Amino acid sequence: MTEDLRNSLSERMRKQIDFILEIDKEKNIFRQTHITGYGRNENDAEHAWHMAIMAFLLAEYSNEKIDVARVMMMCLIHDVVEIDAGDTYAYDTEGLKTQKEREEAAKERIYSLLPADQKKVLTEIFDEFEENKTPEAKFAHAMDNFQPILLNDSNGGKDWIAHEVCKSQVYKRQTKSREGSEQIFDVIDRIIKENAKTGNLRDE
Amino acid sequence: MTEDLRNSLSERMRKQIDFILEIDKEKNIFRQTHITGYGRNENDAEHAWHMAIMAFLLAEYSNEKIDVARVMMMCLIHDVVEIDAGDTYAYDTEGLKTQKEREEAAKERIYSLLPADQKKVLTEIFDEFEENKTPEAKFAHAMDNFQPILLNDSNGGKDWIAHEVCKSQVYKRQTKSREGSEQIFDVIDRIIKENAKTGNLRDE
Repeated sequence: MTEDLRNSLSERMRKQIDFILEIDKEKNIFRQTHITGYGRNENDAEHAWHMAIMAFLLAEYSNEKIDVARVMMMCLIHDVVEIDAGDTYAYDTEGLKTQKEREEAAKERIYSLLPADQKKVLTEIFDEFEENKTPEAKFAHAMDNFQPILLNDSNGGKDWIAHEVCKSQVYKRQTKSREGSEQIFDVIDRIIKENAKTGNLRDE
Repeated sequence: MTEDLRNSLSERMRKQIDFILEIDKEKNIFRQTHITGYGRNENDAEHAWHMAIMAFLLAEYSNEKIDVARVMMMCLIHDVVEIDAGDTYAYDTEGLKTQKEREEAAKERIYSLLPADQKKVLTEIFDEFEENKTPEAKFAHAMDNFQPILLNDSNGGKDWIAHEVCKSQVYKRQTKSREGSEQIFDVIDRIIKENAKTGNLRDE
C-alpha cells in the first residue's frame, strides 16, 4: 500500500489495518508444543484458533456460567504480546521471571496501534485473562492448558520427554485449569497419570 | 491416550476430544496466500484466526447489524472441510467445479465426530456461511476476502503475480465483500486499482 493510498483511508481504518497486519507476525511465534503427528512446532496463531473453538465446544464444562464469546476473544488475542516478548515455555523457570515485564511492554506497543477505544477493549480483555479472576478468564486458562496437553498426549508425550518434564510441574500449572473446569481437570488428571505411568512424564 | 483411558471418559467428552484432535489437521492445509514478509504460505487455521479477530475489530463497517460472536465462529470453522477437500484456490476454475461436492462429503465426515447436538450447531453455522444469505454470513465472507487482499498487498502482490491474476477476477470475487460491507469494499477497491496500476494485477 502506497502512502497515498494509506492517506486516503480514514485514520480509524488505517489504524485497524496496521494492527491487523502487525498481528500477522504471531504466525511466526513458535511454541514448544508440536501439532498432531509431531510434524513441526505449533505457532501462537494456530494455538489461539484451536483454543477458541475448544472454548465454544467445551463451555458446558465450565464451573461457572460464562460469556462464551468473551472467552473466545480472550483465547484469540492472549498471545499477541509474544510478537515482541516471544513464547515462554511453561517449564522455563528463568524465562518466566522476566515474562510479565516483557509482555507488559509488548501489550502497550501492539495495542496502541489500534484506535483508542479498541485499544481499551482489547487491553481489558487481555488484562482480564492475565488477572485470571473472572469465570471467563479461568475457563480460557483451562483451554490454554488443556489444548497442549491433548496435543502432547496425542504425540506420545514426545515434548514432555524432550524437556524432561515432571508430573509435579504439570500439576502445578493445571491448578488453573481446575479453577475453570473440574470436569476438564478430571480428564487432564487421567492423562497426566497415564503419561507418568508410561514414563513420558517424570514421576516426581 | 490408551483405549482404557478413552473408555473411562463419557461418550460425549470422547467425541468432543476426537473432533478437537481431528481439526488439528487444518494446520497442515496450506493456502496460496503467503503470510506478511512472504516467508511461507499461510495455513487454514492461521487464516481463520486472523479473520475472526478482524470480524471483531471491523464489525462497525457491516452493512447490517450483526451478531459478531456468530460471525467469529463462522470464521473459525468455515475451512474445517478442507482437511479432506483441500484448499481450492480462488482462481482455480477446474478445482472450483468439484469443490462443493468434495466439501459436502468432508462436512458430513468431520462434523459427525461430534455429539449429535453439536454436529447440528456447527453444521448450521457452516451452512449459513456457505449459503451467504444472512448479514453474518455476508460479513464473514467480507473478512474471508479482505484478509488475503491485505496480505497480498503487503507482500507487493507477489501471489497475484505468480498466478497471473486479473483485476476482473478479483472484482468478481469481491462482489461478496460488498454485500457484507460497502466500506470495506471501498478499501478493497482502492487496493485493487493500485495493484492494477503497478502491474501486480493484470489489467483485464
